[in-house]
Amino acid sequence: MSTAAAYAVSAPDGRFEKVTIERRELGPHDVLIDIKYAGICHSDIHTARDEWGGAKYPCVPGHEIAGLVAAVGSAVTRHRVGDRVGVGCMVDSCGECEPCVAGEEQYCIPGATMTYNTPVAPEIQADGYTMGGYSTQIVVTENFVVSIPEGIGLDVAAPLLCAGVTLFSPLRHWNAGPGKRVAIIGMGGLGHVGVKIASAMGAEVTVLSHSLSKQEDGTKFGAHHYYATSDRQTFRDLRNHFDLILNTVSADLPIDSYLKLLRLDGTLVILGLPENPLQIKPFTVAGYRRSLAGSMIGGIAQTQEMLNFCAEHGIGAEIETISADQIDGAYERVVASDVRYRFVIDTATM
Amino acid sequence: MSTAAAYAVSAPDGRFEKVTIERRELGPHDVLIDIKYAGICHSDIHTARDEWGGAKYPCVPGHEIAGLVAAVGSAVTRHRVGDRVGVGCMVDSCGECEPCVAGEEQYCIPGATMTYNTPVAPEIQADGYTMGGYSTQIVVTENFVVSIPEGIGLDVAAPLLCAGVTLFSPLRHWNAGPGKRVAIIGMGGLGHVGVKIASAMGAEVTVLSHSLSKQEDGTKFGAHHYYATSDRQTFRDLRNHFDLILNTVSADLPIDSYLKLLRLDGTLVILGLPENPLQIKPFTVAGYRRSLAGSMIGGIAQTQEMLNFCAEHGIGAEIETISADQIDGAYERVVASDVRYRFVIDTATM
Repeated sequence: MSTAAAYAVSAPDGRFEKVTIERRELGPHDVLIDIKYAGICHSDIHTARDEWGGAKYPCVPGHEIAGLVAAVGSAVTRHRVGDRVGVGCMVDSCGECEPCVAGEEQYCIPGATMTYNTPVAPEIQADGYTMGGYSTQIVVTENFVVSIPEGIGLDVAAPLLCAGVTLFSPLRHWNAGPGKRVAIIGMGGLGHVGVKIASAMGAEVTVLSHSLSKQEDGTKFGAHHYYATSDRQTFRDLRNHFDLILNTVSADLPIDSYLKLLRLDGTLVILGLPENPLQIKPFTVAGYRRSLAGSMIGGIAQTQEMLNFCAEHGIGAEIETISADQIDGAYERVVASDVRYRFVIDTATM
Repeated sequence: MSTAAAYAVSAPDGRFEKVTIERRELGPHDVLIDIKYAGICHSDIHTARDEWGGAKYPCVPGHEIAGLVAAVGSAVTRHRVGDRVGVGCMVDSCGECEPCVAGEEQYCIPGATMTYNTPVAPEIQADGYTMGGYSTQIVVTENFVVSIPEGIGLDVAAPLLCAGVTLFSPLRHWNAGPGKRVAIIGMGGLGHVGVKIASAMGAEVTVLSHSLSKQEDGTKFGAHHYYATSDRQTFRDLRNHFDLILNTVSADLPIDSYLKLLRLDGTLVILGLPENPLQIKPFTVAGYRRSLAGSMIGGIAQTQEMLNFCAEHGIGAEIETISADQIDGAYERVVASDVRYRFVIDTATM
């Protein structure tokens, strides 16, 4: 058992405060990580504020974790002390169900152990539920720790562990690449990384954003086209156009209108999770054999593949680094969409 | 110009009456077909009764056409006088758009010319819109005429031209076959053919029907499992189970509940077209990277492939043959789901 500094909220309307939490003794397959940076994901906010229900307090969010290996268990083979490593949204899964065997641990049938707010035995996390990356240290089983290649700063790598793989996985699954027209709906924390990755994959990338206010950035990140969805003409001009549309927006969009932008056999993938059911007209999907699909983060092997790809192509998230005492203010700004494009907590300030 | 007997309605609430219609002079690429049998599809009823809007009267429905070639134009190479042939839902398309070039004429961007009720030049059909298969003869350009192999009766082949390819196409597109679990929702005109085809493809086939009343038939057609969807336990037992679900039911079903029966990367395909938008919870598709898709009939080459497949596997539709003066009564029975499983009009009775 060891202790670590962490930032936690103790109620849905609470403010973040510094606390001391326990991390478990290293088991043979465990890795102790000195966390250097933790990204702020909108899911952190939903959980800290109990907007999805079931939040446990004190709540330590954070599932975009980058740091250095401080110690390893006796049987660890994947990582060594001093290695640059990352942890994403999951810290364990059953390992035996069909999705786990297929390397898609995020779809584990009994349910993966998420990095924070998931019930676990007290010997895994003293409090009976996982506590995440807004902390100076974390202990994770080696199979859920990925390597961060040289060539990506730990700070800009942190958001890739959730935002990066959330975009990379569907881009790979639906074969984004040369000759494919890919649209990214939303230019936020998820979307801006999607533009960079899709462009590096060789796809023709279009951003569909509410306004043109981030067009210059989009072009810089690799977008070939940029359209404002507040302009109805956009939906006429781009009808039957895309092979793949990734929706990163959690707000309720008129998805049926976006589906019509797909060409024959195109797919629209939901990545953000709006609160209300999607309304789909049967003819819209039947018309050109279009598909509506969903996708959640990515498996561990694919997370590693994504980090290697990003290192090779010089891709990191665009970040604004903050100190731990600025988390509350950062949350306000995320909710107001006032961040370009991801907040990252420097845990040296804890 | 020649004339043919036909059965037409002249108003949404009209009864079918015998009329004489004109068929165009044979152009160099045209085939004149002596129609022997015409299946009754639910779409015929929607159109004849103007339930979809835009119906033109007198209306001659019918897009499940089987017959013999009576004459061919000077440049026709695909068919010869006396050949057993069929015509499905389309009689022409632009031939130049991306879907047409890909052999997916049903998704023709300017819009395929459907077999009935589609505006055309008077030199194509004297009345200015197409007239379908409830008739003794029809003239169709050779590329939209398929061959009916020996080994399938023309009567049981007729419904394959719409119902058969509507099921065959998505089964092929989503790779139904050995090791794949396929569910067919609905055991009607579409569904029963789907069971036969999916089973012949080697898939493990499950029927999801409102009740178990047709279970014996389902088993005879090749279904391995049969479940009543009126029993809520069905939805618990089959959760995360299927690779592919084909929904042949046009009524409003709780599609979100059916989506949950898909395993990782499974697809639910809408074939019937319900009137109201589908309500899809984002998490249902995101959860196991499930997809909701649509599909409409199939291309001409695939229609031929389907007929060859059915001949090879001894598959025909289950039919009840009627005379032309029984069409009105047959419509009532189709609407009441009182047919096992498709009405076919014997045009010798016209």
